[in-house]
Amino acid sequence: MRIGVDIGGTNLVAGLTDAQFQIVDKLSTPTLGKRAEKEIVDDIIRLILTLMEKHNLTEKDIESIGLGVPGWCNTDTGIILKCDNVNFRNTPIAKLLQAVVNVPVFLANDADCAALGEAYGGATKDVDHSIMVTIGTGVGGGIIIDKKIYNGFNHGGGEVGHMVIDMHGLPCVCGRRGCWEQYASATALIAQTKGAAKANPNSILYKSVGGDLEKINGKTVFDALAQGCPVAENVVDNFARYLACGIVNLISIFQPEMVVLGGGVSKAGAPLLSRVQAILDKECYGDVTSLPRAKFCVATLGNDAGVIGAAALGV
Amino acid sequence: MRIGVDIGGTNLVAGLTDAQFQIVDKLSTPTLGKRAEKEIVDDIIRLILTLMEKHNLTEKDIESIGLGVPGWCNTDTGIILKCDNVNFRNTPIAKLLQAVVNVPVFLANDADCAALGEAYGGATKDVDHSIMVTIGTGVGGGIIIDKKIYNGFNHGGGEVGHMVIDMHGLPCVCGRRGCWEQYASATALIAQTKGAAKANPNSILYKSVGGDLEKINGKTVFDALAQGCPVAENVVDNFARYLACGIVNLISIFQPEMVVLGGGVSKAGAPLLSRVQAILDKECYGDVTSLPRAKFCVATLGNDAGVIGAAALGV
Repeated sequence: MRIGVDIGGTNLVAGLTDAQFQIVDKLSTPTLGKRAEKEIVDDIIRLILTLMEKHNLTEKDIESIGLGVPGWCNTDTGIILKCDNVNFRNTPIAKLLQAVVNVPVFLANDADCAALGEAYGGATKDVDHSIMVTIGTGVGGGIIIDKKIYNGFNHGGGEVGHMVIDMHGLPCVCGRRGCWEQYASATALIAQTKGAAKANPNSILYKSVGGDLEKINGKTVFDALAQGCPVAENVVDNFARYLACGIVNLISIFQPEMVVLGGGVSKAGAPLLSRVQAILDKECYGDVTSLPRAKFCVATLGNDAGVIGAAALGV
Repeated sequence: MRIGVDIGGTNLVAGLTDAQFQIVDKLSTPTLGKRAEKEIVDDIIRLILTLMEKHNLTEKDIESIGLGVPGWCNTDTGIILKCDNVNFRNTPIAKLLQAVVNVPVFLANDADCAALGEAYGGATKDVDHSIMVTIGTGVGGGIIIDKKIYNGFNHGGGEVGHMVIDMHGLPCVCGRRGCWEQYASATALIAQTKGAAKANPNSILYKSVGGDLEKINGKTVFDALAQGCPVAENVVDNFARYLACGIVNLISIFQPEMVVLGGGVSKAGAPLLSRVQAILDKECYGDVTSLPRAKFCVATLGNDAGVIGAAALGV
């Protein structure tokens, strides 16, 4: 059995997985990320020990412990370099855990763990090469090659959200212009929806929030589309173009067997997915040679992907 | 020893390499790509046999034969799927060669071979992860991970030239808009140079070709820049921005140890390279964690990269 810990900005979640990477049991506690580093580490250790005790497991029963980190880490040395929302900085987390539980400890970025989780227990479990694109505050990426995370020589790769798709476009927090996540994140979709609602006060979209733009979330535009709103349709059409643009780029570069879409917006279902798929069908390069095509699908594990992927780090 | 064959649009070049991937000897013959498939295959076999006879080598002395193909191929089955300029279509080239020379035969796309050649005998020989970007008629790419070519599950990956960097930009032959090669290829540079010369008939640039825009090639703008032409400087500044935009994208995604630039334009030297490097220094994501940075350099093997990379396919 293996243990995976998803260190989230809100909760620490530790899960026990079986040989098929199914979650047997799961415990969680609030992260309270601004606490002293030691207190957070102690809580992670407590979750792990509680899982082991509860299931009568000793160190010998646990093949590996994996950690999904919301920031940068050195996967070779087991050190968390930096997190934005959790008080870890150059934290030798693997060593700290192993001082208490003598089991091999692995760590990786949380977006990478989610991609690996889907690759072991979810949408991409039957393929070796996949890319997971997670639509959230930003656009996260996890690249899986031969069932392993690929993140470059310095563990900083997979930043697909900062691929520029419109070099004269919107400024990004990273300092560049036109990064994919300025167009295809949930944040971007909400901004696009607000802009369209504001410009069209007679639309179903505008009326659906009673004219209060602050009520708009990532679902609003799809609800209005379902009611036949042409303004919402235009927003969704454009968002699908933005999303597909980056996905086609990744397919041209990687030709993975599958691209899997995660994050809340992926739950929009057919209205979004069918539009993206139509663009992929048209634009994915390579049809001249009747090469098999990368498949596009939606993540199936939800929040469990991070725990399962963390557990699979030791494979 | 190994043999690498670079199947070019103009020439077939076969090279014999030693254990350090240095070329010991090299023979070539015109490709005449429109000939019958069998005639081209026979010429490839003849080059290989001549190299072996000349150096008194038997099949046992040759560890592998590799072929660099100017088109798509299935590296698993040894079949050339399609070439644009050479009359191969679903050609079982490995089998045809092995019927005469019983040595393991490997094949790969020529841009991939060039990248592998640099990785074994050239600019990137000391690193495991590199990406080669070749500036020519288009923008070619070769992705090397753990000293092996990465080209995806269907052997069609590495098409970095068709990464969109300006989604509302110029139409591309592939059917998309704003592909990198529409901005950063030699073809694009020449078009940009012509446009600037035409718009500025008093410029050094315009006068350097005596007002005959058809005399403009990939070197013209750098020559005018060397003479202090501000119009040329503007063209080079913009071209460097286009080139750097795609390179930063690739670094954000892959974090390779090195990005190596090949093709004729890479010979422009410092005036181009220093501009690109300045943008990489500013825009490559990851400095928040003081991660080591991907290095940017120029290819060193020239046309030999393809032969050396083909020879290295069997490693």
